[in-house]
Amino acid sequence: MVKNAFYAQSGGVTAVINASACGVIQTARKHRDKIGTVYAGKNGIIGALTEELIDTDEESAEDIASLKNTPSGAFGSCRFKLKSLEHNKKEYERLIEVFKAHNIGYFFYNGGGDSADTCYKVSQLSEKMGYPVQAVHVPKTVDNDLPITDNCPGFGSVAKYIAISALEASFDVRSMAKTSTKIFVLEVMGRHAGWIAAAGGLINNDDYDIPVVILFPEIEFNKDKFLEKVDKKVKEYGYCTIVVSEGAHWPDGKFLAEQGTKDAFGHAQLGGAAPVVANIIKDSLGHKFHWAVADYLQRASRHIASKSDVEQAYALGEAAVEMLLAGENSIMPTIERISDFPYKWKIGKADLADVANVEKFMPRDFISDDGFDISAKCRTYLTPLIDGESYPNYKNGLPIFVTLKNKLVVKKLTNFDV
Amino acid sequence: MVKNAFYAQSGGVTAVINASACGVIQTARKHRDKIGTVYAGKNGIIGALTEELIDTDEESAEDIASLKNTPSGAFGSCRFKLKSLEHNKKEYERLIEVFKAHNIGYFFYNGGGDSADTCYKVSQLSEKMGYPVQAVHVPKTVDNDLPITDNCPGFGSVAKYIAISALEASFDVRSMAKTSTKIFVLEVMGRHAGWIAAAGGLINNDDYDIPVVILFPEIEFNKDKFLEKVDKKVKEYGYCTIVVSEGAHWPDGKFLAEQGTKDAFGHAQLGGAAPVVANIIKDSLGHKFHWAVADYLQRASRHIASKSDVEQAYALGEAAVEMLLAGENSIMPTIERISDFPYKWKIGKADLADVANVEKFMPRDFISDDGFDISAKCRTYLTPLIDGESYPNYKNGLPIFVTLKNKLVVKKLTNFDV
Repeated sequence: MVKNAFYAQSGGVTAVINASACGVIQTARKHRDKIGTVYAGKNGIIGALTEELIDTDEESAEDIASLKNTPSGAFGSCRFKLKSLEHNKKEYERLIEVFKAHNIGYFFYNGGGDSADTCYKVSQLSEKMGYPVQAVHVPKTVDNDLPITDNCPGFGSVAKYIAISALEASFDVRSMAKTSTKIFVLEVMGRHAGWIAAAGGLINNDDYDIPVVILFPEIEFNKDKFLEKVDKKVKEYGYCTIVVSEGAHWPDGKFLAEQGTKDAFGHAQLGGAAPVVANIIKDSLGHKFHWAVADYLQRASRHIASKSDVEQAYALGEAAVEMLLAGENSIMPTIERISDFPYKWKIGKADLADVANVEKFMPRDFISDDGFDISAKCRTYLTPLIDGESYPNYKNGLPIFVTLKNKLVVKKLTNFDV
Repeated sequence: MVKNAFYAQSGGVTAVINASACGVIQTARKHRDKIGTVYAGKNGIIGALTEELIDTDEESAEDIASLKNTPSGAFGSCRFKLKSLEHNKKEYERLIEVFKAHNIGYFFYNGGGDSADTCYKVSQLSEKMGYPVQAVHVPKTVDNDLPITDNCPGFGSVAKYIAISALEASFDVRSMAKTSTKIFVLEVMGRHAGWIAAAGGLINNDDYDIPVVILFPEIEFNKDKFLEKVDKKVKEYGYCTIVVSEGAHWPDGKFLAEQGTKDAFGHAQLGGAAPVVANIIKDSLGHKFHWAVADYLQRASRHIASKSDVEQAYALGEAAVEMLLAGENSIMPTIERISDFPYKWKIGKADLADVANVEKFMPRDFISDDGFDISAKCRTYLTPLIDGESYPNYKNGLPIFVTLKNKLVVKKLTNFDV
């Protein structure tokens, strides 16, 4: 029997989450005998609850193909976590109501740890509430903190962006250091895990010798040791680049970004960690500094996405559909690394029960002994993930990104407030 | 008679200033019968005063060619303005002493407005101090504020970076706006002129309809009108992107960035304009925001340099040598626009007397009537400048940039303190 599928994007979007959507939709379209229409949730899972279902059959093959080159979430995303069945049965009953009304038997959820948990709960609907549904989670998170999989789609492209940005800015500072800026501080995402900050360490390799000091959320900030390290680098190289994670914090757990900063209205936490770190250096060592906060630019940077990241994002979307058609439920396709150089990988799979709510931090041996750099092991892990470029096409100097029609299916049910 | 040449990079470096160096050195090498060696100043003009002359003949043809793809200043740059001949004759006498000692009769200075002034002064040495030297200025500045030339090398690439970054981040925010971030603020360079901020307006064109509000340094900040504008955009589109120039200021001239921000140590001006603008919106309209400060990332972003910018930077270096060989002195090669679409241009030339110390601001008719957007005229001017991509080669996921040997010529003179 032909059933329809529901697909939704969840949490912070990335440069390649649409490539996964492309993989899901293109693959589903090849199996019209089993999968009718892929309905995408408008603004994520909220679209399922509010019955705002986007009919992806309204989108041309060309536009769906363009998703592979378009950053952000083409259908809209949201930060919304379903409570447990015990705590909010109403939402699950509503999901089933919407699924029934639109003959949806397949559920694809594209997100990080929280979403894996939601997807897991949906996969249990059959057993717990008697509604037949197969649920497959498609991994996505720039934070790279999902367990089991070699890495998470979205991360490789952020890592590439951060490594290139840090390299380019370091060249800049090196040019100016004699009479001007000696310190450059780049703030990067990653409140709990230092994977993104670690990418800054990639600009030290066989080709480049750049003085970089990294501040990880995994390592308590030690001001004296940090200043000693920076001072040494500046004395040796004439300049120093610092990559600081937004999650870098003092021993008492307080984020560096919360350094008591107040604006004229008395607001706390106006700035980020970068200006705080820059000023700490200025105070003690007196060097002129510049700082940047990449913020969304890093996770949206499709223009310099990692080729392996784009390919994996697509392959995981494709595999999700194939696994579902093979009868799987409550699983997440994963990346399994076969070799580092050349980077070879294949698709594996994980039980959602093992994925949901498990956070993967940087292993301690991925960080140098002094806590300010990555280890050789980490470099070996990261390098393949930023390899290759996957350029979008351009028109008038700008990348060609697609904006879908996003036509909604006619509602059949009464309203539901989320 | 064969004379040597001196070349120096000046002021803030860019993604393409090395492409100009490449043009100068490759062209000079074609004329060994007239130009002996190109000596590059280590850290700019300071290298001439301290007799720290880099022998570019020590660099391979391959490495010199790679300069075209390498951001930053390969020989080092500095912020140093020669005083007038009347106020510091000593420095000019030293310049002549160094030039004589190394048989330097040609002077190429690669920089912005201040450097044009220095170059102009050097070009007068022959007349005023009897030392025969020809001086040609090679334009460079991300600020795009040099007069006469259609645009300045370095600017097109920054404009492209800002337009792409704003586009990508806007797609991101659009995805999240339903339940999360509705406001994205991007702070860009340009303390006096709004050319770089104007690039943010390019993401509204025939292909994209993105709600953007721009804060130019040329327009006094009007908080009420600004909030009204943002509110309207959010009501219409669900989100809004703000591009704010670091030079945006209140009617009394105070920069937005100086909003009384103080850190725990009582430092003023810890953050930039972006967090201030974001908080102004949050206070009045209550929207969740994100902000980014691109800083050096924008001017160093060789990975997404504009093709026409790279080509023009090279062509201007090449033309500088050819004009000098044709007997010119005290001039700057310029870009003359022939047509907008397709973008056609040729090399022209300007007298340095007309360039030095003249700043080109955004014409008022390049800014929309309400002061928050660019005009159609500005769009026509800017679009060709970001056209085309000029990708560097990559290895291990990172661009291949060259680091030169930078071997110094043996000194012949006594030390000189700068």
